[in-house]
Amino acid sequence: MEAWFFENQTGNFGIKIRIKSILYHGKSDFQEISVYDTYEFGKMLVLDNAVMFTDGNEFIYHEMLSFIPLFAHKKPENILIIGGGDGGIIRECLKNNFVKHIDLVEIDGEVIEVSKKFFPQIASQIDNKKVSVKLEDGIKYLKTVNNIYDIIIIDSTDPVGPAEGLFTKDFYESAYNALKEDGMFVAQTESPFFNKKLIKDVNHIINNIYKISMMYYAMIPVYPSGLWSFTVGSKKYQPNKINEVYKNIDLSSLDLKYYSHEIHISSFILPKFIKELLN
Amino acid sequence: MEAWFFENQTGNFGIKIRIKSILYHGKSDFQEISVYDTYEFGKMLVLDNAVMFTDGNEFIYHEMLSFIPLFAHKKPENILIIGGGDGGIIRECLKNNFVKHIDLVEIDGEVIEVSKKFFPQIASQIDNKKVSVKLEDGIKYLKTVNNIYDIIIIDSTDPVGPAEGLFTKDFYESAYNALKEDGMFVAQTESPFFNKKLIKDVNHIINNIYKISMMYYAMIPVYPSGLWSFTVGSKKYQPNKINEVYKNIDLSSLDLKYYSHEIHISSFILPKFIKELLN
Repeated sequence: MEAWFFENQTGNFGIKIRIKSILYHGKSDFQEISVYDTYEFGKMLVLDNAVMFTDGNEFIYHEMLSFIPLFAHKKPENILIIGGGDGGIIRECLKNNFVKHIDLVEIDGEVIEVSKKFFPQIASQIDNKKVSVKLEDGIKYLKTVNNIYDIIIIDSTDPVGPAEGLFTKDFYESAYNALKEDGMFVAQTESPFFNKKLIKDVNHIINNIYKISMMYYAMIPVYPSGLWSFTVGSKKYQPNKINEVYKNIDLSSLDLKYYSHEIHISSFILPKFIKELLN
Repeated sequence: MEAWFFENQTGNFGIKIRIKSILYHGKSDFQEISVYDTYEFGKMLVLDNAVMFTDGNEFIYHEMLSFIPLFAHKKPENILIIGGGDGGIIRECLKNNFVKHIDLVEIDGEVIEVSKKFFPQIASQIDNKKVSVKLEDGIKYLKTVNNIYDIIIIDSTDPVGPAEGLFTKDFYESAYNALKEDGMFVAQTESPFFNKKLIKDVNHIINNIYKISMMYYAMIPVYPSGLWSFTVGSKKYQPNKINEVYKNIDLSSLDLKYYSHEIHISSFILPKFIKELLN
């Protein structure tokens, strides 16, 4: 059978993934949600026709968006995730006993339900007693909190549709205020090949708000160009260094498949054309 | 106009690139050769329907396949390139005055002609007096030379069709014999996501032949998965270190857009699942 899913990642570039079946298709108040079974990568979550993750490589995005801030911060006990209704970031954060509480602010409750049903290994910790799920708009929520989080993680879709407001100066300032005095903010910030202007703008804004701002990357084959960027704003800690409290930690029990302390550091070393984009 | 080029990169995954025009299409004795003009990346060379490079990002592959061995070796004066008829590796090597001579062994002379016509900025140094072009089979050629090259670079197509023999133990042994006693060998070795077995096998073979073997990567958006691997076999020098003779060299005159000394070192630091593939 030659059935294919297509994603136009830019107007001029796209990917196609051969599918075995369409497991789910629905429309929530915010977006189209689809689940496919694929030959190459296993099951796949798609929002508004953009691939969010596949069973075969979700570990990359989830590990790298979680463990970089977790191991750069000295004592990340209280964490806010905006977006991330699938539960992947929750699962990674809760691998660490030092995490005491997670607020998940997800605008679309149907993403949570679909993930629990079709991706139970990703959603496995959503009902953990350390987690509070708030079904509301992350932009509005952030304006109501002040000085309470150690880390804020923005696990959003692309900057169109419901996630558009998550890439603005106003939003980054709210996040700054919601963080404690040694807090750290991290967001997925698209492809350095296809979204140069967005990356430049976001880094410029975060650089103006936070004492320290840096970009790092991970290699994710189902995302546009296969190369993905993340931007960190930090009030105190150097994001590209392992905080000394973890230097001798044993990572072998954490079931990590991409992240290592070596990768933590090297993921901040950017190819020349990307480094120059940020200057 | 919605005209698209499609490449099935595996049986179950592919890319599509929107095209403005088909500039050339022909069939040589060895392969189909096509040149497209694309909206996203500029002009694009395609062999047997696999993208070789585009004007927009050819610098990544060509810099990384050239400068890693060049700056790890102490005195790379005599270089052999197998494949690479487009001239990109020649151009990068000849940015360095210390390179005295290059033999280019390309089985398909039509690739050279097409590159000179459609990619003059890539083919710019093919007629340099330091370069000898040999239109012959690299596998046979390697068996005729002994102990003469400082570096051998395998700039091949995928391991099907004309390049199949370039991924074998017999070939790697011939390369070993053609190298001087401090020589270094490097080959493109496909995607760590899609070609795990090939990478494992090639690394195992090279590890058995050479004193030192290592893998490094570069991020190339038009190649399968966006992540590409290169495998080095070295008789003496550590490939992941900048040779001390270049430590204070000024790279600013070399027109590099991806490679830097920092990237040289970090490109050998592999995500955990890839590192484990090689053990």
